[in-house]
Amino acid sequence: MKGLFSALLVPFDENGQIIEQGLRDVVRFNIDVQQIDGLYVNGSSGENFLLSTEQKKQIFQIVSDENKGKVKLIAQVGSLNLNEAIELGKYATELGYDSLSAVTPFYYKFTFQEIKAYYETIIRETGNDMIIYAIPALTGVSMSMAQFDELFQNEKIIGVKYTDGNFFLLERLRKQYPNKLIYSGFDEMLIYGAISGVDGAIGSTYNVNGKQAKQIWDLCQTGKVAEAYEVQHKTNDLIEKILELGLYQTLKEILNVKGIQAGTVKQPMSSLDPAKKDAVKHLVEKYEL
Amino acid sequence: MKGLFSALLVPFDENGQIIEQGLRDVVRFNIDVQQIDGLYVNGSSGENFLLSTEQKKQIFQIVSDENKGKVKLIAQVGSLNLNEAIELGKYATELGYDSLSAVTPFYYKFTFQEIKAYYETIIRETGNDMIIYAIPALTGVSMSMAQFDELFQNEKIIGVKYTDGNFFLLERLRKQYPNKLIYSGFDEMLIYGAISGVDGAIGSTYNVNGKQAKQIWDLCQTGKVAEAYEVQHKTNDLIEKILELGLYQTLKEILNVKGIQAGTVKQPMSSLDPAKKDAVKHLVEKYEL
Amino acid sequence: MKGLFSALLVPFDENGQIIEQGLRDVVRFNIDVQQIDGLYVNGSSGENFLLSTEQKKQIFQIVSDENKGKVKLIAQVGSLNLNEAIELGKYATELGYDSLSAVTPFYYKFTFQEIKAYYETIIRETGNDMIIYAIPALTGVSMSMAQFDELFQNEKIIGVKYTDGNFFLLERLRKQYPNKLIYSGFDEMLIYGAISGVDGAIGSTYNVNGKQAKQIWDLCQTGKVAEAYEVQHKTNDLIEKILELGLYQTLKEILNVKGIQAGTVKQPMSSLDPAKKDAVKHLVEKYEL
Amino acid sequence: MKGLFSALLVPFDENGQIIEQGLRDVVRFNIDVQQIDGLYVNGSSGENFLLSTEQKKQIFQIVSDENKGKVKLIAQVGSLNLNEAIELGKYATELGYDSLSAVTPFYYKFTFQEIKAYYETIIRETGNDMIIYAIPALTGVSMSMAQFDELFQNEKIIGVKYTDGNFFLLERLRKQYPNKLIYSGFDEMLIYGAISGVDGAIGSTYNVNGKQAKQIWDLCQTGKVAEAYEVQHKTNDLIEKILELGLYQTLKEILNVKGIQAGTVKQPMSSLDPAKKDAVKHLVEKYEL
Repeated sequence: MKGLFSALLVPFDENGQIIEQGLRDVVRFNIDVQQIDGLYVNGSSGENFLLSTEQKKQIFQIVSDENKGKVKLIAQVGSLNLNEAIELGKYATELGYDSLSAVTPFYYKFTFQEIKAYYETIIRETGNDMIIYAIPALTGVSMSMAQFDELFQNEKIIGVKYTDGNFFLLERLRKQYPNKLIYSGFDEMLIYGAISGVDGAIGSTYNVNGKQAKQIWDLCQTGKVAEAYEVQHKTNDLIEKILELGLYQTLKEILNVKGIQAGTVKQPMSSLDPAKKDAVKHLVEKYEL
Repeated sequence: MKGLFSALLVPFDENGQIIEQGLRDVVRFNIDVQQIDGLYVNGSSGENFLLSTEQKKQIFQIVSDENKGKVKLIAQVGSLNLNEAIELGKYATELGYDSLSAVTPFYYKFTFQEIKAYYETIIRETGNDMIIYAIPALTGVSMSMAQFDELFQNEKIIGVKYTDGNFFLLERLRKQYPNKLIYSGFDEMLIYGAISGVDGAIGSTYNVNGKQAKQIWDLCQTGKVAEAYEVQHKTNDLIEKILELGLYQTLKEILNVKGIQAGTVKQPMSSLDPAKKDAVKHLVEKYEL
Repeated sequence: MKGLFSALLVPFDENGQIIEQGLRDVVRFNIDVQQIDGLYVNGSSGENFLLSTEQKKQIFQIVSDENKGKVKLIAQVGSLNLNEAIELGKYATELGYDSLSAVTPFYYKFTFQEIKAYYETIIRETGNDMIIYAIPALTGVSMSMAQFDELFQNEKIIGVKYTDGNFFLLERLRKQYPNKLIYSGFDEMLIYGAISGVDGAIGSTYNVNGKQAKQIWDLCQTGKVAEAYEVQHKTNDLIEKILELGLYQTLKEILNVKGIQAGTVKQPMSSLDPAKKDAVKHLVEKYEL
Repeated sequence: MKGLFSALLVPFDENGQIIEQGLRDVVRFNIDVQQIDGLYVNGSSGENFLLSTEQKKQIFQIVSDENKGKVKLIAQVGSLNLNEAIELGKYATELGYDSLSAVTPFYYKFTFQEIKAYYETIIRETGNDMIIYAIPALTGVSMSMAQFDELFQNEKIIGVKYTDGNFFLLERLRKQYPNKLIYSGFDEMLIYGAISGVDGAIGSTYNVNGKQAKQIWDLCQTGKVAEAYEVQHKTNDLIEKILELGLYQTLKEILNVKGIQAGTVKQPMSSLDPAKKDAVKHLVEKYEL
């Protein structure tokens, strides 16, 4: 369960339906070309929160089928609808996903005790392991060290996908919990996670730029941090451009340029402005994606 | 479409299933006892964002059936899953709901153009009228006057449920759009909406305290604002207590005390602490609910 | 100590020095033309936090001298430098100011106990009454009802200048403390304060539009809220324009148009763009300022 | 101008007066014992924003006198009162401070153009170099890359004290401006700044724990990041305790335990609870401070 995981992108057609072959190709591209160590399925980058239960299941099934046990698979099943979270958790467990993950519930201002009970319920009902998905910028939920302490008492909570810029808390977590899995998010700050001894990193740009991320990661593992930082600079030049053009839209267009039927984003997200397509093509060439 | 609308509460059992008879009784209690003018169905107070599509439909159906055309019905169909929003919108339209309403999409940081397109799509697909549901404290989406101007160009956007404390913007909207329907939220500030010439107000506490809210509303309509303010004081004494005990949990327990099978809240929300039941009973007596 | 108070504007020259005659004229204009009931001196609108101790004293002195006991005077003496706050508090007390006021200390994240001690120290050292100056949008300090309860135990804390849009808390304060002085801020929401039984309102636009504000205030006192709301509409048309042009810059330019030597704002605030002067002149004519 | 700078602590007596000998001893302790490379004088940690102009000057003078040219000195002169900022800037320049620094103006919501003009004015009036002091958590002012681009056009703006956790922006700044001085803040994240090629770091805990910080810094310079991270772990164990006990209060008490007359904090900050003194003594022993 270590290394780089792509936060898997999912191709959609104009009606918001999954493009199955496109999804299979994205999975293969991640495994064969980007050589990532695992896939984080149905996370924010997978536009999970825009999907129906059936679509989420379809994605879990297709990815598992295409992966054929090759890389590690984490199934994000968190939902404000706890019944759905359980249903998805059971489904992914049966499919053999290596672990579940669940976003902290959002929208309503849940108390920490409610959040904790939510995780306990999913774990109890599925019997699977759980990786907390902490992403305060989208959920508004910032958990304190004391709250992580409380969650990590549960042996089935095996780790956290920590998508936050608070590297002090990340350091504290690492120090206190050497045996929990800690995955950092924010690809543009991969190096900071890597030198902090995280077990892995999960990100959306790894779908198209996994090889370079892997360089950063491997260089850090072997203590070559200065070299890693040079690669991070180059990586961030690219990420800066991608963010300017629109994150998910651009990542999918890059895949399209690479010959993968990556479709478009699902509404309410707006499709890539056609006028930007040339700029994306230029990125692919310039950064040899 | 004027007056006081209850943000309808929905009874759930311990497994998160709708208690149909309880729901029918809550509808009747709102119409017959609280004498509200309409029901806002599947809003935040209805725990809508915790439900499956089927449950949302079930609620739309039961409420419509029980109402029998007695009071006005607004169907909140907004969803991050736009396909679901359309499906719900069509369903509620067929059931004869007087208007649709849709929350601004949240979680992802949608641009205003994406938000606008989301409304246009629901309107186009359903052919029904639309009431914007603006609730920045839960969605993180604050729309400016200029953005409301842009939305209100669309004739099918007939109004806004404005659950925000920015009464300057409310005043500007009222001044600029005398013919759009403006509903204020925040029951504890009903009087401020009422004197601002809003068309109505929508709130969760009206399920149990609609009569008193009606007093505030009617007194304001006839210019007796000082008297209305005295009632608002009393109302807020109650609301303060309800908020201390837990909003939805306490409202449901009040209904339970009144003999309605209002069940409990749906997880991840935590049920009312049994130790607080006496305090709720005391509220019912003290405030003659 | 009841009624409308102008948050007194202070004329500065290009070097950030006080224009004494201009200041005297602004005081006179407020008293004689705008017919306000009092002056709130050295508040945010007086650019107080951009000034030296000597300038603050100079302003206290000039205003007191020009006022000659005509209207009520409140001296805002709050400062992160508590020694300065005390020095100013003693000075204003000697000059006969009717009450002190002090902003909640900001920048550093003071605990409530530190904030409370700050008020107690100023009160003990000056022997004068204190009006809390709560303005969360600028200070980041939002006090809860429980914290106001604790502060209001102190008899020398006679009230609060409450510049916040949380009208629920305002209502709670009014209900609980009928004998404390509550002044609302936010001129564009004057009517909401007025119907809440506040003792007065304090605002910057009253320097130029006090007469119209007075109408809103007086109409509310006599129960003519609907009429007051019509005036608030007109007032807000003006305020909307002023905010677009730049708040303090425009207010001063309006005074300049009226023949008062109101100078400019103090740096770091930027002076009114000369290209906007015509627009300001137009405002003066259109709104008969 | 490279290396570790202490954000100099200033001893105050119970009346908020500077303890001159204590200040001299803190300067010596920093230079002789902690072996820091420079002092950042009159920053937030120096309680600068609680002081009178005279006190700020007194501190600049004493520090310069005690330092005798030994280590680099940066004078923070930023103030909402631009006249004071200029006066302080001239004073520190005459005293031979190596560079000025100025906090972004806060409280009022200044536009970027106003902020830029503020820096230009200080530079023009003093003729000295300027280091931007960016500390969004206290000022509420977050500058974008484009805004830094605009500021850094000015050759007299030689760098930035960047006290923020946004390491993506830090990386972008470093990449784009290899010749500007970048100092990171947040001692608990020193390692992340150090591997980012910052020129130095400025922090309050270096007053008492500079030697350990120096280890982190030096290990990173020689590529021994894993070892540095181990030291950061130990350092953060200490910082975590200090933050629990109260930052400035505890740092001063540590100095007191070390025999330096470090006095107390200036009101409105509250003095260390005497009951915590033993815990501080214990820290000094445990961490061999």
